[in-house]
Amino acid sequence: MRNAGDEIRYELALASRILANEGVLDAFGHVSLRHPEDPARYLLSRSRSPRLVEPGDVLEYTLDSEPVHKPDTQQFVERVIHGCIYQARPDVMAVCHHHAPAVLPYCVAGVPIVPVFHLGAAAGATIPFWNQHDEFGDTNLLVAKPEEGRSLARALGAHAAVLMNNHGATVVGKDLRELVARSIFMCQNAVYQLQAQLLGKVVPLTAGETKLAGSISSLPNVVGRTWEYWSSRLAETGLMPPRPAAARSRSRPAARSAAKGKAARPRRGRR
Amino acid sequence: MRNAGDEIRYELALASRILANEGVLDAFGHVSLRHPEDPARYLLSRSRSPRLVEPGDVLEYTLDSEPVHKPDTQQFVERVIHGCIYQARPDVMAVCHHHAPAVLPYCVAGVPIVPVFHLGAAAGATIPFWNQHDEFGDTNLLVAKPEEGRSLARALGAHAAVLMNNHGATVVGKDLRELVARSIFMCQNAVYQLQAQLLGKVVPLTAGETKLAGSISSLPNVVGRTWEYWSSRLAETGLMPPRPAAARSRSRPAARSAAKGKAARPRRGRR
Amino acid sequence: MRNAGDEIRYELALASRILANEGVLDAFGHVSLRHPEDPARYLLSRSRSPRLVEPGDVLEYTLDSEPVHKPDTQQFVERVIHGCIYQARPDVMAVCHHHAPAVLPYCVAGVPIVPVFHLGAAAGATIPFWNQHDEFGDTNLLVAKPEEGRSLARALGAHAAVLMNNHGATVVGKDLRELVARSIFMCQNAVYQLQAQLLGKVVPLTAGETKLAGSISSLPNVVGRTWEYWSSRLAETGLMPPRPAAARSRSRPAARSAAKGKAARPRRGRR
Amino acid sequence: MRNAGDEIRYELALASRILANEGVLDAFGHVSLRHPEDPARYLLSRSRSPRLVEPGDVLEYTLDSEPVHKPDTQQFVERVIHGCIYQARPDVMAVCHHHAPAVLPYCVAGVPIVPVFHLGAAAGATIPFWNQHDEFGDTNLLVAKPEEGRSLARALGAHAAVLMNNHGATVVGKDLRELVARSIFMCQNAVYQLQAQLLGKVVPLTAGETKLAGSISSLPNVVGRTWEYWSSRLAETGLMPPRPAAARSRSRPAARSAAKGKAARPRRGRR
Repeated sequence: MRNAGDEIRYELALASRILANEGVLDAFGHVSLRHPEDPARYLLSRSRSPRLVEPGDVLEYTLDSEPVHKPDTQQFVERVIHGCIYQARPDVMAVCHHHAPAVLPYCVAGVPIVPVFHLGAAAGATIPFWNQHDEFGDTNLLVAKPEEGRSLARALGAHAAVLMNNHGATVVGKDLRELVARSIFMCQNAVYQLQAQLLGKVVPLTAGETKLAGSISSLPNVVGRTWEYWSSRLAETGLMPPRPAAARSRSRPAARSAAKGKAARPRRGRR
Repeated sequence: MRNAGDEIRYELALASRILANEGVLDAFGHVSLRHPEDPARYLLSRSRSPRLVEPGDVLEYTLDSEPVHKPDTQQFVERVIHGCIYQARPDVMAVCHHHAPAVLPYCVAGVPIVPVFHLGAAAGATIPFWNQHDEFGDTNLLVAKPEEGRSLARALGAHAAVLMNNHGATVVGKDLRELVARSIFMCQNAVYQLQAQLLGKVVPLTAGETKLAGSISSLPNVVGRTWEYWSSRLAETGLMPPRPAAARSRSRPAARSAAKGKAARPRRGRR
Repeated sequence: MRNAGDEIRYELALASRILANEGVLDAFGHVSLRHPEDPARYLLSRSRSPRLVEPGDVLEYTLDSEPVHKPDTQQFVERVIHGCIYQARPDVMAVCHHHAPAVLPYCVAGVPIVPVFHLGAAAGATIPFWNQHDEFGDTNLLVAKPEEGRSLARALGAHAAVLMNNHGATVVGKDLRELVARSIFMCQNAVYQLQAQLLGKVVPLTAGETKLAGSISSLPNVVGRTWEYWSSRLAETGLMPPRPAAARSRSRPAARSAAKGKAARPRRGRR
Repeated sequence: MRNAGDEIRYELALASRILANEGVLDAFGHVSLRHPEDPARYLLSRSRSPRLVEPGDVLEYTLDSEPVHKPDTQQFVERVIHGCIYQARPDVMAVCHHHAPAVLPYCVAGVPIVPVFHLGAAAGATIPFWNQHDEFGDTNLLVAKPEEGRSLARALGAHAAVLMNNHGATVVGKDLRELVARSIFMCQNAVYQLQAQLLGKVVPLTAGETKLAGSISSLPNVVGRTWEYWSSRLAETGLMPPRPAAARSRSRPAARSAAKGKAARPRRGRR
C-alpha cells in the first residue's frame, strides 16, 4: 500500500491552508510532506493555490519529482525544490516554499534574517542566502530544473531555511507542525527585525539563546497550543479542508474537533 | 450586434471587484476592456466604485470616449485615459487606472518603481513617470481632457504601466487577466521595494531576468491558479457580481464554478 | 419644533459609523452636526464609541455646549471642541474630533501634514498645529474647558483641520459628507506622505493644484460614489445604524437602499 | 468558598479574548487576576491560546504558582511571572504577559517606549527594560524559574509595565479593565512612537502631562465606553466566551448586553 492515507492528505491540505491563512502563502507557494511509509517518495498537491488545496489534490512523487501516477492536472513547475531537498536531507520530512511579504524585502536587499525574538530562534542561528544568478545567470527566477533544485539544496545545507534572491524562501522541518511553526515565526521575526532596525539597532539572540530557544516551538505544550490556535483561526474563515466522505466516520484530530461547527458551516449558522 | 455580450460584462465587473478586493482599487479607479468584436469601441462601467460594479453598469464608448448610447447615469470624468490609450496602443485590450496605496508614495516622491521580485517583472523593466504639471501647469490632477489623455498615452509609450504625479497609476494589458495580475503584482513589488530600501539596499532584477520573469504571470499554469485564488477570495466576501437572470442558465467560466456555493450564496441572504 | 428629525439623527449615526469603519475613529472621537434649523444648536451623541452610536443616542446642545435637555447619560468631556468651533465659524456645519493612527505620528513629531495627492487637497493647503501646552501648560491633553476649546478654534482659524499635539486632530466641513470625505482623505494623505518621505522626498501639490483639487471630493459625481462605497462597506460589517421604528416606512436615502439586505441581516442570511 | 465564582472566570476569559482580538495577544501570552476574595491566590487559565480561553479553563494558583487543585491539563510554563509579581506588588490585581508585534521591535532594539499621546500615558512615564541575559546568561528566554520571575518583578518595581529583551512585555493593573486598557494603549503608543521617529522627531508628554493624562483611561466615562467598544468588536467576530449553563439565567454585565444579539448568537451557529 504505497498510497498515503486520507488522514495524511488531510493534514497536508490543512497545513497548506493554515500557512495561507497566516500570511505565509498566497496564490503561490507550496507545502510537501515526505511519504511517511516510503522515504523515497513525497506528497505535494497539484498546481493550485494553497488555501484551496483539498486532500484529493495531493499527488505522489518520486524524489526525482516525477509523479508516481501521471496526473491529468497541472503540476507545480518548482516541485524540484522539494525533491532535491528530500534527496539531500534525509532528516527533512516536510518542505515549504513561499514568497511571504515579510521575507521578500530581505530577498531583495540581500540582508540576512537573524533571530531577534525567542520564537524566531525556530529558524536557527543562520539562514543562508542563495543567489540563483551566481550560478545560473539570467533566469525567470523559478527553480524549475533539477540542477537548480540541487544548487538550492546545497545552499540550504544543514539549515532550517534558505532565502532566495528576488524570489522568496524555502523552509524545512522534521514534521508538518514544526514546518508550519518555523515558517510563521520566521516571518514574524523578519517583521520585528526590520522595525528594530528602524528604531536604531538590532540586537539578535546570542548563539546560546538561539540554541535553547530554538526548541520552544517543539514543546508539546506549545505545539498543541499553536495548532489549536491556527486551526481555529482557519475554521473561523470557513476554510477548513473538506473531509473525504469515507474518512468522516473515522477519528478526528484534536485541533479539528476544537474548531468543529465552524468548519462545517462557516460564518452563517441560524438565529 | 455591437453590444458586448453578458459574459464580457460579467468578466469586466468581476475584474473590477477582484482589483478592489485585492487593495488596488477603492472608492475610485476603473477598469475597461476593448470591445472584443469592435476594436474601435471599449467597455467601461458608469461612475461607480469598482467593488460595486454590476454587469448592467457597463457602458460602451467610442475611442473618443463618447458613449455609444447616451446614458442617464453619471460617467467617469477620467474615461479619456482609456480612450486615448486604446487609440495609441492597438495591442492593448484592457486598461486600469488606480490610486493604490502601495504606489502612491512613489507618485509623491517621484521615485521609480523597479522590478524587485520575479512576479514584479510583470510590469516590465521600466515604468515611466508622467508629470501632468510639466505640460499642463496647475490642474486638479484629474485626466479629464483629451489632450491630457493623449499626453498620458505618450508617456506610457510601449510600456505596461505609467505612474502619475501625486495621483496614481495606469496599467495596461493584452487581456483582463494579464491586466489584473500585472496591477496586483506591481503593487506587491512597490511594497517590497520600499521595505528593501529601509533595510539598506534595493537590488532589482537584471534586464535579462525581467524579460524572462515577465511572462510568468501569463503561463497557463499561473493564470488559472491566480484567477481561481482571487475569485475565491472575492466570493468569500460575498461580493461576486450578480449574474443577469438570462445568463444564469448558460455556461459558467471555470473560476466561477471553482468558487461555487459561496459565490452563488454570499454572506448576505438574497437580493 | 426644535428637535432634529429622525433622518438627521440617522445620518449623524451613519457618519460616525462610517468614520469608525474606515479607521478614522476608534473607541474615541466624535462627530457633530450643527442643527439644520437652528444654527445656535448642535447635535452630538452621548458618550459612546462612534461605531455604536444610534440615532437615539444623539443629544442637542447649545453652542456653549450645555445640553438642551439634561440627559441621564454620560456626555463627552470634549464637547467644547464642537461648541467653540460652531461659535467661531458660522460656515461650519459639521465637526469631527479624532485620534486616527494615520495622523498621530504627525501630532507627536510636530511635522505638518501637506497635501501630497489630489484627494488629500480636501483638507486644504495648510493644516495648522495647535500646541495645548503653549497656552495651558501641563494638562491631561483633553480639551475640556471652554477656554481650551476657544484656543483650539482660534488655531483652526479659517482652515479645514487642525492637528493637536500628542492627541489627535479636529476636522470641519460644510456638511456631513464633506466632513467624512475630508477626514478619510486626510488620513490617507498622511500615510502616503510618511512613506514618500521614507522613499526620499515629499513633493506636495502646488498651491494652484491644491485649490483646484480641493473641490474634487465635493463633485456630485464623487460624493455619490464615495457615500455609496463607504455605506456599502459599513453594511457588509453588519453595522448600519438601526432605524427608529417610526422612520422605517419613510423614504430611505440612496446609499442605504444600495446596501439593503446586508444592513438588516448582517453576514448571515440563509442558504 | 475559595473557588472564584463563575462571573469572575467569565470576566477573565473575556479579558483574554479582548486582548487577543485587539492584537495584543496571539497564540501566546496570558492574563491573570488576583483572587478577589483571597489575595494569596490568583486565577490563570490552563495552557491555551488566549482567544480560546473559556471560563472552565481557569485554574487557581498560590502565589508560588502551584495549582490549588492539581489539574489534568497542561499549565503555562511562565506562570511564575504572575505569582512573583503578585508577591512583590500587593496593589496589583491583574497581570498580562504578551509578545505584541507593536512592542517587540523595542524589545529587540533596546529602545525605551515613552508616552507620546494622551492615552499612552496609561503605562506611566517610565517603562523599565529587563534584560534576562544580564542576570541569567543564555536561557531560552522563557521566564520559567521562580528566581527569573522575582528578577522580573524587581525590574518592574512600582511601574505599570516592563519590557523584556527579545521576548515581549508584562503589564499590570489594579483591575482587569485597567490592565486591558493599559495594554492596548501601550501598543498604540509604541506604533505612533516609531512612526514619529521616522517622521523626524519624538516629542513625548511632559512629566506633568503624563501624570494627568495617566488617569484618563480610568475615568468612569472612559472605562464604560472602551469596554463596550472592545466587547462589541469581540462579539462581532463570534468569539465571546461561552457562559456556563448555570450562569445563563443570572445577571449579565453591561458590556455584554450592549453587544447582545451578536454576542449571544455569534457567526457560528450553536455549539
